[in-house]
Amino acid sequence: MITSSANQQIKRILQLNKKAKTRYEQRVFVVEGMKMCMEAPRERVEAMYVSESFLKEEDRRKKVQSYSYEVLTDSLFRTVSDTQTPQGILCLVKMPEYCLEDLLGNTPGCRNQKQEEGRRNPHLLILESIQDPGNLGTMIRTAEGAGATGILMDKTSADIFHPKTIRATMGALYRMPFYIASDLPAAVLTLKEQGISMYAAHLAGALSYHQPDYRQPVGFLIGNEGNGLSPEITGLADTLIRIPMEGKVESLNAAVAAALLMYEARRQRGL
Amino acid sequence: MITSSANQQIKRILQLNKKAKTRYEQRVFVVEGMKMCMEAPRERVEAMYVSESFLKEEDRRKKVQSYSYEVLTDSLFRTVSDTQTPQGILCLVKMPEYCLEDLLGNTPGCRNQKQEEGRRNPHLLILESIQDPGNLGTMIRTAEGAGATGILMDKTSADIFHPKTIRATMGALYRMPFYIASDLPAAVLTLKEQGISMYAAHLAGALSYHQPDYRQPVGFLIGNEGNGLSPEITGLADTLIRIPMEGKVESLNAAVAAALLMYEARRQRGL
Repeated sequence: MITSSANQQIKRILQLNKKAKTRYEQRVFVVEGMKMCMEAPRERVEAMYVSESFLKEEDRRKKVQSYSYEVLTDSLFRTVSDTQTPQGILCLVKMPEYCLEDLLGNTPGCRNQKQEEGRRNPHLLILESIQDPGNLGTMIRTAEGAGATGILMDKTSADIFHPKTIRATMGALYRMPFYIASDLPAAVLTLKEQGISMYAAHLAGALSYHQPDYRQPVGFLIGNEGNGLSPEITGLADTLIRIPMEGKVESLNAAVAAALLMYEARRQRGL
Repeated sequence: MITSSANQQIKRILQLNKKAKTRYEQRVFVVEGMKMCMEAPRERVEAMYVSESFLKEEDRRKKVQSYSYEVLTDSLFRTVSDTQTPQGILCLVKMPEYCLEDLLGNTPGCRNQKQEEGRRNPHLLILESIQDPGNLGTMIRTAEGAGATGILMDKTSADIFHPKTIRATMGALYRMPFYIASDLPAAVLTLKEQGISMYAAHLAGALSYHQPDYRQPVGFLIGNEGNGLSPEITGLADTLIRIPMEGKVESLNAAVAAALLMYEARRQRGL
């Protein structure tokens, strides 16, 4: 049992929770709670940590018995936990490695069902400078629900492996292919060359978001919560679309806007 | 200029930001930032506070010149601010007073345009035990955008005057009629007696959310982020509807679900 906060493993978890830099250096991230730990692809689980009280309940003990795990005192678990009421279980999980082509499903031996769908008819969510980790996680969760086939985002967006992002994805992080581009405009251009039509939600959009035909390969461009899309990315859109708003509302929350667009594509595709 | 944190007004702002109880005792809440202060109905602004640097820019000074305000040192303003990068302006605003009938627009001399619309064809968002203030604020913002006519919520939901809720409404708080019921089931029953059909998003729903006709008076029931709607409130729904989900997603974020339902009503109503 680990009892001291001076333990190297404890120090490592704390660093991984706190610093994106450490996560990317080690290519590992921290997930917390029963659902996120049990849904993690087994071959990517590098380590598991549970609290003393966690093990006291038999059905929980059974669920983790096939893993090798370390036990932490309850108080020590609370110090490494990112949540206010820890469930007493966390895992270190190896980062998945996707490339841009994975969003198109072009790679030989496609890794999962999402990519198979993407090869047939891509439906992509493309994110520029999303600030809030919770918003980002909600978008990934909604994307899976709406049947989107992949997510492209830039390096200035919130970290996809931030504890708050991970929590908000509710497991979708394990299943949605994503690619973090260092040059977002170049990546969008590459996708356009592959025949994907780009739609940007924009106040200047002439068409309502219900009007275009999304049954063909589509990408939805969603920008920063405060400032929207940059002129450069807006300029890459094939069509500007408008989400109608009543009253004095000037814009919608970015995750809400993304949800309306992706679910409209889903409706048209008759999934 | 106020320079000391021992000043009674400073102590009052801190208490109002921190404690829902103080807000309801004094029937006053705190709003921060230029947009939220300028959009506050003038007759309800009880006090305005600005920071020293705020006044240094001429266009800002002009915007507040018709108000009476107190000036705070920059460091003192930071201590009363609820945000990490304060804009240097906050207001104390009197709470609006709505009753349940206001959601129906039945009261003589309806107060605003939303209530006039509600009298013609109510479109209500009904919230049970929403936990996250940011989620609640996002739902109020989306409700205005979707042309909903009012919000009914219970006392166990996050406080509508919590600083994080207020911020997420982006001003919609000033314009959406809302009623906080101490007995939510009774309030829902009253609305049903007025001819409003209740729809609950539920995994057991037989109809997809696109299928019912929302052009008649409707209420959408949305439950707690983790546990969904209680059996009691679910039992009051006329129809259970389902938001289809792909992959292994078990549910959507509550604000995302609310947005999809309200925007579907908006689409059908052809606003």
